[in-house]
Amino acid sequence: MRTEKDFLGEVEIPDNVYYGVQTMRALENFKITGYTADKEFIISLGIVKKAAALANMEVGLLDATIGKAIVQAADEIIEGKMFTEFPVDPIQGGAGTSFNMNVNEVLANRALEILGRDRGDYAYISPNNHSNMSQSTNDVFPTAIRVCTIRRGKKLIKSLKELADELEKKGSEFKNVLKIGRTHLQDAVPITLGEEFFAYASSVRRAKKRVDRTMTFLHEVNMGATAVGTGLNADPEYIKAVARHLSNLTGEDFKTASNLVDATNNTDVFADVSGSLKVTALALIKIANDLRLMASGPRAGLHEICLPARQPGSSIMPGKVNPVIPEVVNQTCYQVIANDLAVTMGVENGQFELNVMEPVIAFNIFNSLRFLTNAIDTFKNLCIKDIKANEAMCQAWLDKSVGIVTALLPHIGYEQCSALAKEALANERGIKDLVLEKNIITAEDLNVILSPKEMTEPGIAGKSLLCKRCI
Amino acid sequence: MRTEKDFLGEVEIPDNVYYGVQTMRALENFKITGYTADKEFIISLGIVKKAAALANMEVGLLDATIGKAIVQAADEIIEGKMFTEFPVDPIQGGAGTSFNMNVNEVLANRALEILGRDRGDYAYISPNNHSNMSQSTNDVFPTAIRVCTIRRGKKLIKSLKELADELEKKGSEFKNVLKIGRTHLQDAVPITLGEEFFAYASSVRRAKKRVDRTMTFLHEVNMGATAVGTGLNADPEYIKAVARHLSNLTGEDFKTASNLVDATNNTDVFADVSGSLKVTALALIKIANDLRLMASGPRAGLHEICLPARQPGSSIMPGKVNPVIPEVVNQTCYQVIANDLAVTMGVENGQFELNVMEPVIAFNIFNSLRFLTNAIDTFKNLCIKDIKANEAMCQAWLDKSVGIVTALLPHIGYEQCSALAKEALANERGIKDLVLEKNIITAEDLNVILSPKEMTEPGIAGKSLLCKRCI
Amino acid sequence: MRTEKDFLGEVEIPDNVYYGVQTMRALENFKITGYTADKEFIISLGIVKKAAALANMEVGLLDATIGKAIVQAADEIIEGKMFTEFPVDPIQGGAGTSFNMNVNEVLANRALEILGRDRGDYAYISPNNHSNMSQSTNDVFPTAIRVCTIRRGKKLIKSLKELADELEKKGSEFKNVLKIGRTHLQDAVPITLGEEFFAYASSVRRAKKRVDRTMTFLHEVNMGATAVGTGLNADPEYIKAVARHLSNLTGEDFKTASNLVDATNNTDVFADVSGSLKVTALALIKIANDLRLMASGPRAGLHEICLPARQPGSSIMPGKVNPVIPEVVNQTCYQVIANDLAVTMGVENGQFELNVMEPVIAFNIFNSLRFLTNAIDTFKNLCIKDIKANEAMCQAWLDKSVGIVTALLPHIGYEQCSALAKEALANERGIKDLVLEKNIITAEDLNVILSPKEMTEPGIAGKSLLCKRCI
Amino acid sequence: MRTEKDFLGEVEIPDNVYYGVQTMRALENFKITGYTADKEFIISLGIVKKAAALANMEVGLLDATIGKAIVQAADEIIEGKMFTEFPVDPIQGGAGTSFNMNVNEVLANRALEILGRDRGDYAYISPNNHSNMSQSTNDVFPTAIRVCTIRRGKKLIKSLKELADELEKKGSEFKNVLKIGRTHLQDAVPITLGEEFFAYASSVRRAKKRVDRTMTFLHEVNMGATAVGTGLNADPEYIKAVARHLSNLTGEDFKTASNLVDATNNTDVFADVSGSLKVTALALIKIANDLRLMASGPRAGLHEICLPARQPGSSIMPGKVNPVIPEVVNQTCYQVIANDLAVTMGVENGQFELNVMEPVIAFNIFNSLRFLTNAIDTFKNLCIKDIKANEAMCQAWLDKSVGIVTALLPHIGYEQCSALAKEALANERGIKDLVLEKNIITAEDLNVILSPKEMTEPGIAGKSLLCKRCI
Repeated sequence: MRTEKDFLGEVEIPDNVYYGVQTMRALENFKITGYTADKEFIISLGIVKKAAALANMEVGLLDATIGKAIVQAADEIIEGKMFTEFPVDPIQGGAGTSFNMNVNEVLANRALEILGRDRGDYAYISPNNHSNMSQSTNDVFPTAIRVCTIRRGKKLIKSLKELADELEKKGSEFKNVLKIGRTHLQDAVPITLGEEFFAYASSVRRAKKRVDRTMTFLHEVNMGATAVGTGLNADPEYIKAVARHLSNLTGEDFKTASNLVDATNNTDVFADVSGSLKVTALALIKIANDLRLMASGPRAGLHEICLPARQPGSSIMPGKVNPVIPEVVNQTCYQVIANDLAVTMGVENGQFELNVMEPVIAFNIFNSLRFLTNAIDTFKNLCIKDIKANEAMCQAWLDKSVGIVTALLPHIGYEQCSALAKEALANERGIKDLVLEKNIITAEDLNVILSPKEMTEPGIAGKSLLCKRCI
Repeated sequence: MRTEKDFLGEVEIPDNVYYGVQTMRALENFKITGYTADKEFIISLGIVKKAAALANMEVGLLDATIGKAIVQAADEIIEGKMFTEFPVDPIQGGAGTSFNMNVNEVLANRALEILGRDRGDYAYISPNNHSNMSQSTNDVFPTAIRVCTIRRGKKLIKSLKELADELEKKGSEFKNVLKIGRTHLQDAVPITLGEEFFAYASSVRRAKKRVDRTMTFLHEVNMGATAVGTGLNADPEYIKAVARHLSNLTGEDFKTASNLVDATNNTDVFADVSGSLKVTALALIKIANDLRLMASGPRAGLHEICLPARQPGSSIMPGKVNPVIPEVVNQTCYQVIANDLAVTMGVENGQFELNVMEPVIAFNIFNSLRFLTNAIDTFKNLCIKDIKANEAMCQAWLDKSVGIVTALLPHIGYEQCSALAKEALANERGIKDLVLEKNIITAEDLNVILSPKEMTEPGIAGKSLLCKRCI
Repeated sequence: MRTEKDFLGEVEIPDNVYYGVQTMRALENFKITGYTADKEFIISLGIVKKAAALANMEVGLLDATIGKAIVQAADEIIEGKMFTEFPVDPIQGGAGTSFNMNVNEVLANRALEILGRDRGDYAYISPNNHSNMSQSTNDVFPTAIRVCTIRRGKKLIKSLKELADELEKKGSEFKNVLKIGRTHLQDAVPITLGEEFFAYASSVRRAKKRVDRTMTFLHEVNMGATAVGTGLNADPEYIKAVARHLSNLTGEDFKTASNLVDATNNTDVFADVSGSLKVTALALIKIANDLRLMASGPRAGLHEICLPARQPGSSIMPGKVNPVIPEVVNQTCYQVIANDLAVTMGVENGQFELNVMEPVIAFNIFNSLRFLTNAIDTFKNLCIKDIKANEAMCQAWLDKSVGIVTALLPHIGYEQCSALAKEALANERGIKDLVLEKNIITAEDLNVILSPKEMTEPGIAGKSLLCKRCI
Repeated sequence: MRTEKDFLGEVEIPDNVYYGVQTMRALENFKITGYTADKEFIISLGIVKKAAALANMEVGLLDATIGKAIVQAADEIIEGKMFTEFPVDPIQGGAGTSFNMNVNEVLANRALEILGRDRGDYAYISPNNHSNMSQSTNDVFPTAIRVCTIRRGKKLIKSLKELADELEKKGSEFKNVLKIGRTHLQDAVPITLGEEFFAYASSVRRAKKRVDRTMTFLHEVNMGATAVGTGLNADPEYIKAVARHLSNLTGEDFKTASNLVDATNNTDVFADVSGSLKVTALALIKIANDLRLMASGPRAGLHEICLPARQPGSSIMPGKVNPVIPEVVNQTCYQVIANDLAVTMGVENGQFELNVMEPVIAFNIFNSLRFLTNAIDTFKNLCIKDIKANEAMCQAWLDKSVGIVTALLPHIGYEQCSALAKEALANERGIKDLVLEKNIITAEDLNVILSPKEMTEPGIAGKSLLCKRCI
């Protein structure tokens, strides 16, 4: 055990850890969730700290020997070797100071070790003076959240793209599977199963675009803003340099925010990202719900598609197979939508020069990004890929429905169509039969009007037969 | 009274109204809120119907005499002459069919009247066959929501711009008002009141950009999708024409959605718009809360600014003036955030080829747009414009605080600063006094380091005095 | 026009209105929603004011002549004769001061009129000194919200009871309609349609109980708390008297809150009520969703029940009838759930001695109560009452399903049941056929095991046949 | 490794685990959060399973040798020895089947081991036939959620009680600390710091009562409902017995739900519990926000109280101490409010005989209960206990304010008070001085009226001096 102190007194710290007194304080103060930080966030903290150290060295503020040791320590964090050194609860007071001091302490002590000195020799390398040079929690923490959000966001975007690709593949596969379209869960007019999957793909692509769009604002960072955004103690040369180093280290085009005060005390960009995740979740819910409805049965439901069986469905009902993958997708989406409310409330509660609720904002955004990406990959790999169309059932439902009467509308008008539909439903008859029986349209013409192509593509079905003023 | 019928039977309709049987059904079925439709939405419905009629005429489907009468009737709706003809509750079942049939009936009956015929003579002009030609509720309704959202959205964007301008004006006005910055509601380091207002302006501009950005997707309309997005009964030439007419009538660049099925059964674009309103609300809440804090007092609070007095504050406490405008802004923002949840749940519940919850989605988006625009205008005109800085108080707080010790950090290190701060707080002393008393820094140097400019702009305060390795 | 003044200056007021200068200020300041107050709330304000005037007279603080005139004026408000005198926007700053001063002004001016004096003669009867005697907005407003919430709450409770009764009636009607139960939208084991409706009724009764439960806390009022809960300027005798008068006037058992400071600055009781409305909405959503699923079709869906046709379902698809009533119920429920978030955020933002967000809290609770009661009555009268079971379809689905295999579990074990189910599904066979074909159970025994009663009531189906250790 | 199989094929399972093939499937299918189940929930599952085994033995369905071994295995789960045997992600599809089969497999294999047999010898003891006898996931899972919720709920209730006690203690400690009350963040009338803390305590006690109240409904369990609530395969004697055993094992008064179908397919009771946690969170937010405001400063804020310093506040600002504990309380509360939305959406999406979203409901309720209890204990122990009043500042603010003018209202009327307040504010004067200077009230009388007791307790301040008709 070694001893460290702060203004509250001395604290014993296990010899084998790099973190120090302030991390210990945080461990004592924040026992809420029992979870620890998102690993990608720890890596992102490492990246930000490395960029700051490089910038401080570049402008001559930080001694090169110390600086290099700090950079080496930061690299070890970035490489994922230090996760256990970050034990602090992600829901914490202090606006992320505990995270920032945690990384400052790890960097200082590891750098001391690299330089052959004892841990805790803060007179030589200090968490506050060296690890945190030119910085404040109030610029480091939101910047690290941005870096992490972008890193996780890119994974999500990739997963969304792959999901859209897979849905489109299914769209092509099912493009000739004719089925009854449904609105209000009531029989409407024909559509193809392929058209439905193409529409899913289209909505997922829009979701991807929407998430991507929110990444833009995230590239404005407030490094150099220090405590309240005024840049006190941050050299203008350093400010330029740190954004450049951050860009180099990440391959992203980071820029210093045009208004550092704004970038320090406002967190609306996170609400924006989270909002785009919420809308993405809504797009996925629609697909999952539709699939569960289409796969309902197998005997007493629609059964238009078969989802791949992933596990026995019931502890009591033998042979039951449930749509467990869409179900887990749905639930993940509810969680993401709920997390957005935590982000909303966090963002709501900024005051003056800072939003001290950033930890809960970050916690929820990272969770949402991680959960959502996992759910999308699961959805694609364990469900969408292996969906099979049940063409016979699709055709059977279509044959039974009276929805095709709509195609006759331009030919015989709403009122007559209405009467036909009513009669068909009342007497358990088919529309086609009735039309022929009543000699309303010839069989030949009817075949043209009711052909799948005419009914499922834009255009008046049987337009060629239409005398222009018959309406 | 005249009599109309549908498949449920006959209904008596007052002679003096243009709407008909289906509107009457809706009045009977939907008695929920007691409100009626947003007026801009009625106008938007008129625009969409006019565009459709023009397109139908253009491609030769709609007889010119009838078509012109329908267009004239639509113009009367657009001009705001028909508001009382739309009595249906905005929260309604049927996915907007009642709104669509309401306008179809008004158009048909007014067109009949124009052509010298009796209302109800649907054999001549039919709500379904003529007013609704080539259309379905499922393309008309979401398109009209888009048109209305864009119209109201533009007003909001204008109001946001004006608010940002006003905030910037205040930023300039207050640019030399030095004050103590606060984080965690605890004294931090100096900032100017002007910087705070510029930051508000910056966040409002970002909100404006964000709302504007969501307008893009709204310009893809699904006119011609008809019932389920397949375009059944909609001539491809008509589809092209209707988007063009819609653009001409509105001055907006409307396009036919690239995937009409997607555009018909998905409503995520509305969740997106609503989400951007939510984030806008969050930006406003931050400003309103800060103003309420800064204006707290007048005697027992911060009292850094004076808000214009708008009304006596209390029924019992004489002389009390409350920040009623920021308070109403806050509450409007809560409503907007809540409305976003209604939109979220509406969007969540689409199934198959349609989202039948569109009415509640539309209701909430229109309310949010209207309320928010009103609140912003109120905020700007009745509050922001007339805010006065209380420079004396700002200076007094600053003089008392120990936050300026942070500026000494690069000169004397974190530990010594920390000790100074502790001593100052414990003994009710000022930092400057202590530093001089202890001969830590000369008075001359201290004046440089602690000058307002050095402390509120990026850079190491007193950098010129800094020996590079003193850190 | 008459002229009134406050510390902001003089204001012209139309001669024909009872309200005065402070109402005029409010009209200018708060132009947000365009709506006006809930009528029940205006009545409730009248009741509270009447109780206060009676109490003030009783303890000798208020002159009897003036007091009686105020009481008479209050009675006119209570009788609904004064609605147009309350034009203020329900979303307002000032924590309800505008509502309170509005009623104070109406009472003063109407009382002056009754006593033959000019409106505005506030030296004789003053809105602040007389109408508001012993009161503050901070006790009057939350008390009036409580009174209104209880009044509206009782209507809701009555509607919930009637809905539960109706659902139970349907349960009895459908008690012999055997159908396949579904979990995960997948075929499960048999149940009766009646059991489903009884379960709906049961959940509605629980909702009723839950709403009722939240009414308890509402009966603690803070009349006499005045400005901050300390009761400054409120005579203890008055405090006792006002609660008693309030109880007499309403027939409710109102009590003075045991901690007046708490009752003045906390609004959690409203979040509690709103939360119970949210859970009620969830119960209704479940029922509406189930009905929409069961009524799906008519040809290409489950079609187990028929909902009454309420209006033509489509502007383009003839003969289509949609479940518009469950749809409007769903949407109302989304609104109620969303309103709960507005209440939550309002309650979240109390500070020190008051929650100034009470207006938005009240607005949303009243809307939720009104909308929800309307939706429930609509649901019951226009939908539930006339639901018909489609017994043939219910039986057909049941006959097709393999879910009955579960009843065999205690007789032949999970593994053999599982194999049977698999074979039945793969080869499009029925369970019964397979069991008989394989001589697993005799036909006689099978009839016992698979009888409706055995399968839909607690107990091992065919227990009498079960040798105890065959498992 | 051993091999197990289900209808999807064979799976290799590590020799050293008790769980089996279905748990392996779940591990493969559900990779969402990376978290595992709440430990209390695993214990609760053990309790439910033990109760079922005892009941099955009691009614003679389960062989005593096997039954005892299962009970012994369940005891090991209850004692917390088996946590690592439950690796499944808490957000999962299948409505908890994976949790139920996980425990069924652990019980079967551990029981086999106890009886000297090989793991996987399911012909002798089967997860489905024996561990799950008379049960279904659909009764076991919601019952275990109830048990866990009650167990965690009781801890929360205890923590709430202790918090209220502590707040009351502070109330007593501060009962003579006079301060200015504030409404709208504007100076109002005097109050004591003690009254404020008593009000906090009062709101926490109400929260406790509210949570407790929701526990009632949770005691109705659906054990014996089996798959869809009809009780198929559950012997009535067993149903009685299992509720009794559950009560014995937990010391809680569990009852079989009066409507088992309702209790199986509805989850509103969980929305109810979660809603009560939300309202509890709102009560805590109010307290935390007030404390942060009162502790603001130390130099440039209200500084009416001192919170205990828990850790250095800033990485850059020496000497800064932030209110980290109230901040972490706030954030936890946002999370709890957000989790309630996940619960709401989960509850929203039940269909027919089951709500398959129960896993996400349970995940969020358990998280909320755990987080909230932790936050409350943290709040009490690390903050509330050591709050110190800054009496000098409280008095200083009070002396400066003009709020005391309200006490003069009954003596000199609203208008004169108003004028006095205006003059005092405009000329930086004190109310008392002005009154004396103008000879409005004598010094002697003023001392009576403005005494702390008169101003902070119900009653007209200086009533004894009041001539009845002076108003």
